[in-house]
Amino acid sequence: MKALVYHGPGSKSWDDVPNAELVDATDAVVRVTSSTIFGSDLHILKGDVPDTAAGRVLGHEAVGIVESVGSAVTTVRPGDRVLVSCVSACGRCRYCREARYGQCLGGGGWILGYKIDGTQAELVRVPFADTSTYLVPEGLHDEAVLMLADILPTSYEVGVVNGGIRPGDTVAIVGAGPIGLAAISTAKLFSPAQIIAIDLADSRLDAAKQFGADVVVNNSREDAQAIVTSLTDGLGADVAIEAVGVPDTFELCTRLIRAGGRVANVGVHGKPAALHLEDLWARDVTITTGLVDTWSTPTLLKLVRSGQLNTDAFITHRLALADIEKAYDVFGKAADTGALKVVLTA
Amino acid sequence: MKALVYHGPGSKSWDDVPNAELVDATDAVVRVTSSTIFGSDLHILKGDVPDTAAGRVLGHEAVGIVESVGSAVTTVRPGDRVLVSCVSACGRCRYCREARYGQCLGGGGWILGYKIDGTQAELVRVPFADTSTYLVPEGLHDEAVLMLADILPTSYEVGVVNGGIRPGDTVAIVGAGPIGLAAISTAKLFSPAQIIAIDLADSRLDAAKQFGADVVVNNSREDAQAIVTSLTDGLGADVAIEAVGVPDTFELCTRLIRAGGRVANVGVHGKPAALHLEDLWARDVTITTGLVDTWSTPTLLKLVRSGQLNTDAFITHRLALADIEKAYDVFGKAADTGALKVVLTA
Amino acid sequence: MKALVYHGPGSKSWDDVPNAELVDATDAVVRVTSSTIFGSDLHILKGDVPDTAAGRVLGHEAVGIVESVGSAVTTVRPGDRVLVSCVSACGRCRYCREARYGQCLGGGGWILGYKIDGTQAELVRVPFADTSTYLVPEGLHDEAVLMLADILPTSYEVGVVNGGIRPGDTVAIVGAGPIGLAAISTAKLFSPAQIIAIDLADSRLDAAKQFGADVVVNNSREDAQAIVTSLTDGLGADVAIEAVGVPDTFELCTRLIRAGGRVANVGVHGKPAALHLEDLWARDVTITTGLVDTWSTPTLLKLVRSGQLNTDAFITHRLALADIEKAYDVFGKAADTGALKVVLTA
Amino acid sequence: MKALVYHGPGSKSWDDVPNAELVDATDAVVRVTSSTIFGSDLHILKGDVPDTAAGRVLGHEAVGIVESVGSAVTTVRPGDRVLVSCVSACGRCRYCREARYGQCLGGGGWILGYKIDGTQAELVRVPFADTSTYLVPEGLHDEAVLMLADILPTSYEVGVVNGGIRPGDTVAIVGAGPIGLAAISTAKLFSPAQIIAIDLADSRLDAAKQFGADVVVNNSREDAQAIVTSLTDGLGADVAIEAVGVPDTFELCTRLIRAGGRVANVGVHGKPAALHLEDLWARDVTITTGLVDTWSTPTLLKLVRSGQLNTDAFITHRLALADIEKAYDVFGKAADTGALKVVLTA
Repeated sequence: MKALVYHGPGSKSWDDVPNAELVDATDAVVRVTSSTIFGSDLHILKGDVPDTAAGRVLGHEAVGIVESVGSAVTTVRPGDRVLVSCVSACGRCRYCREARYGQCLGGGGWILGYKIDGTQAELVRVPFADTSTYLVPEGLHDEAVLMLADILPTSYEVGVVNGGIRPGDTVAIVGAGPIGLAAISTAKLFSPAQIIAIDLADSRLDAAKQFGADVVVNNSREDAQAIVTSLTDGLGADVAIEAVGVPDTFELCTRLIRAGGRVANVGVHGKPAALHLEDLWARDVTITTGLVDTWSTPTLLKLVRSGQLNTDAFITHRLALADIEKAYDVFGKAADTGALKVVLTA
Repeated sequence: MKALVYHGPGSKSWDDVPNAELVDATDAVVRVTSSTIFGSDLHILKGDVPDTAAGRVLGHEAVGIVESVGSAVTTVRPGDRVLVSCVSACGRCRYCREARYGQCLGGGGWILGYKIDGTQAELVRVPFADTSTYLVPEGLHDEAVLMLADILPTSYEVGVVNGGIRPGDTVAIVGAGPIGLAAISTAKLFSPAQIIAIDLADSRLDAAKQFGADVVVNNSREDAQAIVTSLTDGLGADVAIEAVGVPDTFELCTRLIRAGGRVANVGVHGKPAALHLEDLWARDVTITTGLVDTWSTPTLLKLVRSGQLNTDAFITHRLALADIEKAYDVFGKAADTGALKVVLTA
Repeated sequence: MKALVYHGPGSKSWDDVPNAELVDATDAVVRVTSSTIFGSDLHILKGDVPDTAAGRVLGHEAVGIVESVGSAVTTVRPGDRVLVSCVSACGRCRYCREARYGQCLGGGGWILGYKIDGTQAELVRVPFADTSTYLVPEGLHDEAVLMLADILPTSYEVGVVNGGIRPGDTVAIVGAGPIGLAAISTAKLFSPAQIIAIDLADSRLDAAKQFGADVVVNNSREDAQAIVTSLTDGLGADVAIEAVGVPDTFELCTRLIRAGGRVANVGVHGKPAALHLEDLWARDVTITTGLVDTWSTPTLLKLVRSGQLNTDAFITHRLALADIEKAYDVFGKAADTGALKVVLTA
Repeated sequence: MKALVYHGPGSKSWDDVPNAELVDATDAVVRVTSSTIFGSDLHILKGDVPDTAAGRVLGHEAVGIVESVGSAVTTVRPGDRVLVSCVSACGRCRYCREARYGQCLGGGGWILGYKIDGTQAELVRVPFADTSTYLVPEGLHDEAVLMLADILPTSYEVGVVNGGIRPGDTVAIVGAGPIGLAAISTAKLFSPAQIIAIDLADSRLDAAKQFGADVVVNNSREDAQAIVTSLTDGLGADVAIEAVGVPDTFELCTRLIRAGGRVANVGVHGKPAALHLEDLWARDVTITTGLVDTWSTPTLLKLVRSGQLNTDAFITHRLALADIEKAYDVFGKAADTGALKVVLTA
């Protein structure tokens, strides 16, 4: 089969490799009909993720058709159209029993395209298929469902639900890349009174407006804290969502919230931030971090089906799966190309 | 009347001052029968709390008899025996309506012995008496109730309840001073399977054992993280409570907890801590801070009355209120005197 | 002043009565600019509410201008434009401290137009003004805010929030009168995937569609349970809201929900229903009842201001306050007149 | 092997039957070392449970040694000592993913000794072994763990956790048979201020006292509602747990609770109760029902290991497994024999 293979820092190619095959009784092999690229794929390619060995097939998002299943798989069958989730769940360990699949102790968690071969390929072996794939409801296109492989559950679970957004809240979302935009989309499911998007790039802030931000702030030239304060009777935001992954934006989030407010970190960080406990100790703040668990995937599928979650706006580019190297160029230069999600179709 | 007056950094004396009197319609004046000293009183005395002006009567904990009430006070009457809470609540603002009295926007919050004259005096004016005092149930001694003025609700609300302790949990409590010991006491209300107390002083760890810690760790010579890991099947504690207030202990707490765990900060901090988001971003952690709200005071009164919360063990010294300067010496040299709470009786 | 006075079962008139005046230090007197009629006003008029004595001024919903305040009132001043809430809150008792104002033990709860004189008058005395009135934000019309005096917080708190509606849920709302329609409106704040409205009258079901129901069922000729089952993969609704108040509709709700589902009762009942524990004991159901507390009023004000809660659609008729007897005719014959809420303007 | 076989209403015997064997890849066969009898076994024997066919091996509680496992089982191996839970969980369906295993849609739920052969036998086939058995921690005796097969998780999950017991609460427990006593035991994990046990039999009330009830009420001659009211400042209990299963006791529970209180039904009911909505509609009550899910089993194992949950007191009789018919006599005449749990040892 063809697959995008990582050859070490900076190097990848669309190679012929042996077909993905069943290994364990709980596996499925899925023929990929649609895949896409995530920010973490770029991190791996840069060499930032030493756990990923050269030779690994990249990618952890796909929609496809089940090709074969192991003897213990009971909920999907060959021919079924399924969403392959970014997180694999053994379904048996302490964390899986608590629906915290991202922390799976039984060999799952985020492993596809990271510790085992992934979805940017014609075929992918999916471990624990019963608890790691989702049947695609009738009438839903690949593209819509593909946005549920990672970006939407990540923003919803780690940003919106951890943030505890309630109707009437003021929500500050720092970072208006794909994850920040997905946070805007899914925050609206809880009817906040105002969403304030904060970023350094006007182009991303334009996108934020289109996704439903009520106010946008370019903090390269505007004082985000002053603006949020003025829009909240001097109190601060009820919830701030960090969707960048650097110390400055995290620290900004802790200044934007009101006493009793919440900071939900979604960004992937590479170094420590300062936590200003000398100010925060008495302010009743809650700070959360998290890896996506995908417990919300069935919920999000219902909302896509009911038309309450628009996934089209995330898809800026469409290419053939075989053109994936070109797709990486487009996605890697998002500042120029305006790429959010690039859909690859087999 | 007599009162302990703050005269600027390092200086205090038991002086004759004008009697506390009613000012607002919602005030009560209470004749103090028992008072005590809190760690923050020492901070003020050191000059660390610039909001506190010279001339201020110190103290924010008392039990006493209502002497007089303003025209709008309806729930307590002269002659009633009441607990004076460390937090005053206007009862009308957004935060008070959410029972977050510590963040009161209407002139309350922690003000006694800080922004207005306090309880280390023969008389104290208590603002918002209806929502800031609690009738002492029949049969309860001053001493028992006095522990509910600050230390027990603080540890219970900000440590135990914010920490979300559940039956069967492993709880690490870092710091075994009065607040840490109160956290041990109140953590037990939720039946954790094991409480691990961590401190640098063996004498405090002895106290921790007496208060019910299952395991004690002297982290001047033992590896707290390794011990907690080994006691939790390699996962880490479900909840860590910070009861010191310095960066090291906070950072230790973030290393002690398991994926999905919670850090509840109770300590008063004077500088930032490092938040190691490069490790924590994917570990599903929740970190909380807080000032006591005293919403739990009625609950704690019931538990004292039912004998489920033993307050005796906190009281190491008893003096006359007029000997309060001596009491500060005892309390200020806790390392030598073993003082936890010093009760002052009028 | 003029006021609508209840003269015993079946009898009322727009009479000259003594002006409403301050009694307690916590009172305000408000000059009514807008009032309206609630279903319970009709119950009182029929004589179904024996606690209401002849001579009582009716009504518990109003917007108006503060005329005078007692000496202890600090948050509103003469000249302020305020919403008068259906629930008065002493702000001091156990229930008020838990924001359960409807159960106030200190003389509040629902008392206006029931146990004390109400809002269908030129002037109304509002007890506990600090905790029972809400400043109207700039730019909001009387009409919009008036819908927050009772109908919207009732449906939101007792139906939607008690029902625990989550994004993606299927919600069955039984009864499409004003309360059921308000439940549809406020349920949408949590983005259920589908709202199924059930009623016996096609005219009310037409209204339900306009308010946003996805599916309507006339259970005089359709099998509601079969339809809900078919729309939920055979499981049943996640949440059912009872908005009628008779045994049949309550019992229907308990049949409509899935295992693990919730029934939120909003209807006012006059007799017992059968609870089919022989079926329900093993089905993990939760059933709630409740009186409105109005804790949500500040939230709902924000949502009206942000345009997320449309109050216009509730107002079918507008009359002068002096024409209130005519307004009762219109409201009392809702089946013919299509009346939902009748706004009375002074 | 030998097994207790149900031969139709009123008839059972300890028979030779074919050995339990692996059927599905996810099965384990367990050699029973300890088993016991549950109230529902008596119901089946009486013929009250038509789903149970003649020929069925009874029983759904056991501790034993794994004899063999199917090809897909990964978490237990032959030779492991395991608790066999009363609930089997497919681990894959919607309900299992929400840890609501009792409602399993994938072939699990309560099936042992009901729809498939059970644990009152020398060998038992356990479906979905990975998610339906629990390794017994070192150092725990069979007897202690056996109490976690059904009675303790049932009372804890369906009574105590559904009831939302908090420190300081007043809890009324109606019914002091084994389930009611287990509710007393596990309620104490949340430190209620008082537990009031209510029953018709003094012998059961004596047991209730030994299990930790603070007050006992014989409602054959005392007025339970008046007593609960007098012990709660006139308000009523915070939580009432129904542990009988007849209309009268359920209805009593709804009268015992305060406004804002909760009724948690644990009893198995055979007919409807009256729900007095004419009183309850405005009282903010929450009523829950439920089948045990056994999500709490790992928690309860920790608490048994830490000594916080005493299981000894439940065990009144011990017999050899081969004497199971005699054991049924003892258990079936509990009023005379005082039997709570009868442990059967192989």
